[in-house]
Amino acid sequence: MIKVGIIGASGYTGGELIRLLLNHSQVEITCLTSRTYDGKPVASLFPNLRGLSDLTFEGVEPEVVAEKCDVVFTAVPHGVAFSVVPVLRSAGKKVIDLAADYRLKKLSVYETWYKLKHEDPEGVSRAAYGLPELFRDEIRCADIVANPGCYPTSAILRIAPALKNGIVSHQNIVINAVSGVSGAGRKSELAYSFCETDENFKAYGIANHRHTPEIEQELSLICGKPVTVSFTPHLAPLKRGMLATSYLDLNSQLSPADIHTLYADYYRNEPFVRILPLGQFPETKYVAGSNYIDIGIAVDHRVNKLIVISALDNLGKGSAGQAVQALNIMAGFDETKGLLTSGLYL
Amino acid sequence: MIKVGIIGASGYTGGELIRLLLNHSQVEITCLTSRTYDGKPVASLFPNLRGLSDLTFEGVEPEVVAEKCDVVFTAVPHGVAFSVVPVLRSAGKKVIDLAADYRLKKLSVYETWYKLKHEDPEGVSRAAYGLPELFRDEIRCADIVANPGCYPTSAILRIAPALKNGIVSHQNIVINAVSGVSGAGRKSELAYSFCETDENFKAYGIANHRHTPEIEQELSLICGKPVTVSFTPHLAPLKRGMLATSYLDLNSQLSPADIHTLYADYYRNEPFVRILPLGQFPETKYVAGSNYIDIGIAVDHRVNKLIVISALDNLGKGSAGQAVQALNIMAGFDETKGLLTSGLYL
Amino acid sequence: MIKVGIIGASGYTGGELIRLLLNHSQVEITCLTSRTYDGKPVASLFPNLRGLSDLTFEGVEPEVVAEKCDVVFTAVPHGVAFSVVPVLRSAGKKVIDLAADYRLKKLSVYETWYKLKHEDPEGVSRAAYGLPELFRDEIRCADIVANPGCYPTSAILRIAPALKNGIVSHQNIVINAVSGVSGAGRKSELAYSFCETDENFKAYGIANHRHTPEIEQELSLICGKPVTVSFTPHLAPLKRGMLATSYLDLNSQLSPADIHTLYADYYRNEPFVRILPLGQFPETKYVAGSNYIDIGIAVDHRVNKLIVISALDNLGKGSAGQAVQALNIMAGFDETKGLLTSGLYL
Amino acid sequence: MIKVGIIGASGYTGGELIRLLLNHSQVEITCLTSRTYDGKPVASLFPNLRGLSDLTFEGVEPEVVAEKCDVVFTAVPHGVAFSVVPVLRSAGKKVIDLAADYRLKKLSVYETWYKLKHEDPEGVSRAAYGLPELFRDEIRCADIVANPGCYPTSAILRIAPALKNGIVSHQNIVINAVSGVSGAGRKSELAYSFCETDENFKAYGIANHRHTPEIEQELSLICGKPVTVSFTPHLAPLKRGMLATSYLDLNSQLSPADIHTLYADYYRNEPFVRILPLGQFPETKYVAGSNYIDIGIAVDHRVNKLIVISALDNLGKGSAGQAVQALNIMAGFDETKGLLTSGLYL
Repeated sequence: MIKVGIIGASGYTGGELIRLLLNHSQVEITCLTSRTYDGKPVASLFPNLRGLSDLTFEGVEPEVVAEKCDVVFTAVPHGVAFSVVPVLRSAGKKVIDLAADYRLKKLSVYETWYKLKHEDPEGVSRAAYGLPELFRDEIRCADIVANPGCYPTSAILRIAPALKNGIVSHQNIVINAVSGVSGAGRKSELAYSFCETDENFKAYGIANHRHTPEIEQELSLICGKPVTVSFTPHLAPLKRGMLATSYLDLNSQLSPADIHTLYADYYRNEPFVRILPLGQFPETKYVAGSNYIDIGIAVDHRVNKLIVISALDNLGKGSAGQAVQALNIMAGFDETKGLLTSGLYL
Repeated sequence: MIKVGIIGASGYTGGELIRLLLNHSQVEITCLTSRTYDGKPVASLFPNLRGLSDLTFEGVEPEVVAEKCDVVFTAVPHGVAFSVVPVLRSAGKKVIDLAADYRLKKLSVYETWYKLKHEDPEGVSRAAYGLPELFRDEIRCADIVANPGCYPTSAILRIAPALKNGIVSHQNIVINAVSGVSGAGRKSELAYSFCETDENFKAYGIANHRHTPEIEQELSLICGKPVTVSFTPHLAPLKRGMLATSYLDLNSQLSPADIHTLYADYYRNEPFVRILPLGQFPETKYVAGSNYIDIGIAVDHRVNKLIVISALDNLGKGSAGQAVQALNIMAGFDETKGLLTSGLYL
Repeated sequence: MIKVGIIGASGYTGGELIRLLLNHSQVEITCLTSRTYDGKPVASLFPNLRGLSDLTFEGVEPEVVAEKCDVVFTAVPHGVAFSVVPVLRSAGKKVIDLAADYRLKKLSVYETWYKLKHEDPEGVSRAAYGLPELFRDEIRCADIVANPGCYPTSAILRIAPALKNGIVSHQNIVINAVSGVSGAGRKSELAYSFCETDENFKAYGIANHRHTPEIEQELSLICGKPVTVSFTPHLAPLKRGMLATSYLDLNSQLSPADIHTLYADYYRNEPFVRILPLGQFPETKYVAGSNYIDIGIAVDHRVNKLIVISALDNLGKGSAGQAVQALNIMAGFDETKGLLTSGLYL
Repeated sequence: MIKVGIIGASGYTGGELIRLLLNHSQVEITCLTSRTYDGKPVASLFPNLRGLSDLTFEGVEPEVVAEKCDVVFTAVPHGVAFSVVPVLRSAGKKVIDLAADYRLKKLSVYETWYKLKHEDPEGVSRAAYGLPELFRDEIRCADIVANPGCYPTSAILRIAPALKNGIVSHQNIVINAVSGVSGAGRKSELAYSFCETDENFKAYGIANHRHTPEIEQELSLICGKPVTVSFTPHLAPLKRGMLATSYLDLNSQLSPADIHTLYADYYRNEPFVRILPLGQFPETKYVAGSNYIDIGIAVDHRVNKLIVISALDNLGKGSAGQAVQALNIMAGFDETKGLLTSGLYL
């Protein structure tokens, strides 16, 4: 049994972490911080947890959290994380950061895209990128894990097998992605109100979304060449869920069946990656509420492209679920502990 | 470990039962029947279960199911259940019927509302009404449990404390209820298509819904007088969830706080009934995916009425969840086994 | 051609008024005020109007509006309206107020429910209640029209024929109502965000909604006796639409067909009230985007109640549409001018 | 005043045509056919039209329709249209076909993608492709107009200015498109039910959607070279609306402002194409219910791509609206007659 805390626990990611950790038999939540809700019962903010938790939010500083916990999740905005994490680390605590501050290895790239001077370069150099399928060993030994962004998680897992095996070009990668509204966080913004969002569909962050360099960093690592991608996120009237479609230039004459085998082999031992049978494609509802990513592939032979489509829950494998998976690895638990649940079918 | 089967497992209730039972550590699913999907993997119909179950639907007869199971859930239409259940019972199996065939004690009432001659009167006389909060002991000993309808479950639990304690009249009860679309089942009907349903709200079954006599039967039992209710169901653009508002004539001068205490006391030991603090009211999202029913009360002193509002998941406490709760009671398990999970907050 | 202005034009009601007035061939919009959007094109806030209007919001005072317009719609919050309206009226302009400030005839009732001291009692005494079906003549001659609330519009039109003809009791009236989210206005509140609202259903304002006294005032007028009602509003995941179900105690032995005839006769000459054939009931999607109210009736003979259900668009007959109808009457236009359009079926 | 009929008027496209034509002052609807609803009032199927139309569906043959109408819309499935249209044409009637049968100029392409032998090759050779922005003159003189598909309309209008002006390559065109559910028609299929569709997002028709050859035919015509595209449609939980994102390889050093000017110039006189200001992008809600297409552009300089995004209503500019626009051209009316209305903002 380890003791964990969450700094910034009142957002949607925080709420999902709490839900998952309450179902985790080897974890005890010992501290949940929120300045806004200091002193309020968790169940008053997340009434789905009524009767299941009598925890209370605390408005305490990171130093206090460090005293109460073995591992801390930081679910604060980027630019805040890099001032909180060092406090925890200097107290000898392991940290899983759900913000963007420890994901980009090159500070100049971080500073270009986030318009901020980074205040913990040393932390960045020590952080493991928390994608277990690619960096399980690094995560196991890390004291800082940078939990990947939702778009990068889906893009990297979806493209890695093809790129790693050289069956697609590292150039001309197009990623068209769609997110549910919870990806924007628990926010009182008109743009995310029901009346502005329901029955509406739009693109956003066109040619400038901050997850772009994160995707490029990891795809470049995979193929050993500098990769740039054309990435366009969109917003759909879903609460949860992320579906993305990649258009990749085929380098190879492999049959669809061969490519499917290659994907299936690549993730053969991965508990949370489901490669769908040829001819089947993912839908967000089948992963919502779970830590799974579903991947489907097709060859568009007329234009010689490999189409790879993935679905995950932006609050599951796209953030809180993946963070718990990293925790399990760091703590030496069974990696699937607390995560082997399906979402609701409907 | 007991062996359970589900006859008619391919509907939404069946899917939810499967999801719940897969998470139940003392249950093994040994048979799932579906004529339409005979031979198909469960995960092909419920892809949320990919990787979590390699069960396959079978097109077998009840006799075959009886051989494989200790307890059988029947999730077939009314009018079919009363021909299936006797087969199972004559093989010595316990049955939890999710249809309406064993809920109404008076055959004449059944035949009036369902326009069918009942073919298993003896079964009806033996069946326990599967509402644990009122009939726990009967359920424990029963070999047939009639799982209550979703509207009756919500109505009875919401009204029972007031009616039992005589603080409201047994006359002039108005029940205005709202259901999500899954209440209609997994159906290819235009009326339940997305384009016809989204952004729409309507009443249906006005003055003639078949759950009316079931509500009246149980409320009459509670107060010992014949109760008739004015019940109007509505359809909201929700997948899951049922919220109902009861308007009851107050007989008493009790303060809201006293009435609240009365409700809280009534359900003090019930694990799945959450009486909300005064001033708070239920919302369907807080119970969706769970076996909870949330109840809130208010006094409208200007018209001397007690307003009681409840929310449950029509696939949870309103059907599959409650059926698992009955199973736990019948099998002597901890009653909350496999059910102590929250829904998703969003 | 008359010149009209809207004070507070940037909300949802304002946007709907603009849309309707742009399609009205006898009206010219000469002034739209908004402090927040001063100087911005209307089409930047309501991009559906791109290419259809080159109007610009102005941050001007009521005095300036008065100079530019013959008739002014005030779509400002209650408590603001009663300081704006006198300015317009003293400049000799006619006003249609969409707030609550001129609806309640008794100042004490206003002050009790709105917790505000009214600053324009004389205006209240002069104002016509803007429900054309009941007060067409008053509206024609009025210089202030108090545009009714959405819940009162639906309640009064739904109940008036039965109450006026004495076939139902004036006591024990229960009104269960459901509104779409736009009823809350264009607001950046978390409670109305997509993630908090979609797939959710809840009651609100239980036993204390401010439309209660407005409903009671008008029903009392209709039957000549003091009426109190038990009114519970609910919020559904709809952008537009309001459906309400009334439970009325029958005083009469009239057959359903007779009652239907009575309703049809009552509204025989009303262009925007559609009494549905017996056995049919309203749905919000059939009125969304229009100025219609649909009404369906049923007799629940088992409990001797008349069930009357109505649907309207809270932004149509529930606010902006009805305000344009009042304008047509005040200006001597054909009452249906600019309003004889259906909503979208889907 | 011309007389028009609709064959196959009971679907969603038919319903939208009826709604639009009822608001068209120079058109009289004289015949609406439906076998299923023969004899039923239009308002019983489309209750939004109650009080606005007393038309009745007729189960009549095309010959009878021809006698009653000057122009006929055929809204029947592909494979049916090519047997109906010749009947109308031989009676000397003009036809606007909303199916796919007259869109593809090469019969072999039609037969490859639609798996049907075409039965009216002569009709195909005479038909005008009904995209007014490109083929206004042909439409004016045509007796058969092939109303374009929704995806092709959006793709062609979105890509034409760049391709025609040679600023993008005719190769490597990627089109990622998203449709609302009404695009599938008025269907009782489980896949389009509310419970299966709400809160879900998926791709479909991957690498084999039948609109692909139609897009390629028209883009090839525009640039005079054979074009193939990688086209992936997706389904979003919207009733109406289509948003598509094109990724085009830039051939040119033009600045974004120059490209914007080029687009704006290209459509300078088009009443239904709205080129958004640089930095603004379309959303489906701003076009829903209207005949507009909104187009936004961005340059992704990092990968040298032009991103062009468009939104239209699949029942508006994507089918019924565009068909009325063609009618206006054919009949010599003002092209915008009956179509200059905005959608609802919400």
